[in-house]
Amino acid sequence: MRKLSVFIATSLDGYIAKPNDDLGFLKLVEKEGEDYGYAEFKANIDTIIIGRKTYDWVQREIGTSHYDNGERNVYVITRTERQNVGKTTFYTGNITDLVQQLKSETGKNIYCDGGAEIVNELLKSDLIEEFIISIVPVLVGNGTRLFKDGRPEQLLELVNSKTFDTGLTQLHYKRKR
Amino acid sequence: MRKLSVFIATSLDGYIAKPNDDLGFLKLVEKEGEDYGYAEFKANIDTIIIGRKTYDWVQREIGTSHYDNGERNVYVITRTERQNVGKTTFYTGNITDLVQQLKSETGKNIYCDGGAEIVNELLKSDLIEEFIISIVPVLVGNGTRLFKDGRPEQLLELVNSKTFDTGLTQLHYKRKR
Repeated sequence: MRKLSVFIATSLDGYIAKPNDDLGFLKLVEKEGEDYGYAEFKANIDTIIIGRKTYDWVQREIGTSHYDNGERNVYVITRTERQNVGKTTFYTGNITDLVQQLKSETGKNIYCDGGAEIVNELLKSDLIEEFIISIVPVLVGNGTRLFKDGRPEQLLELVNSKTFDTGLTQLHYKRKR
Repeated sequence: MRKLSVFIATSLDGYIAKPNDDLGFLKLVEKEGEDYGYAEFKANIDTIIIGRKTYDWVQREIGTSHYDNGERNVYVITRTERQNVGKTTFYTGNITDLVQQLKSETGKNIYCDGGAEIVNELLKSDLIEEFIISIVPVLVGNGTRLFKDGRPEQLLELVNSKTFDTGLTQLHYKRKR
């Protein structure tokens, strides 16, 4: 079955952004020619799930090239109806239903590109099979946490751990069932 | 100068205990003969700082043998005066003053054995030089977080990362100044 993966960077203290969506701390580990396995990861993905706020941020700061110019199906989770654009669907329904539907179809894997609200919704429904978490060597002190309180306990299995000379450590887990 | 170190285990989602001080998730990585470097770490420590609640918990659940029967100086941070016992001092003063005093003296390193309140007090004053954090492969979902909101940003340097066959990953950082 297709799996749903999270591939995300956090500070050691567990934040994916500082207040006001400030991602500046990611610059600490930017290195020419080093993508921390992102291209390889995306090669196995044909569907992306993303929260509306994160989508708008990506549109504004990076552009749709982030989704490889319409090669992948993108589902933007939103409360407000919006006209679909190419392979991008604005989805106002129940996220659990969406993921169960997608998993029942054939295809490559599904990637949740955040934000934290969507990740935590998916965790509450135990829908995430794979976690690739890159830990940036900094305590940012405040901001948006990757993991919010009030989720069920979930056992994991460590697949591997990689260390990079920038000080980034990438932890790869799969859900243990 | 003597350094102040934290050596602690957390779940991947950043909790050091589940609600009601439940440390049961640590059993997931218990293994005969594997101490994850704790004995080696403690060999360079002669002073321990610990919060009162954590101290009481250790007294009740493990016993004072945890502190090697009075071989080390133990400072219990508390708001309530209590009679000192052997090398154990109940300290009601300012924790920053205590740590600065200890660091100005000669001796082996200082170990903060928790809890989260004390660790975060020390982080706010930027008094921690070394972090050895063991990540247990589980999302516990709720409980006491190691890192609380509202601290200053602090850059770290990755010293190394070790993976164990139990799935525990140990990340070792030092404060980058």
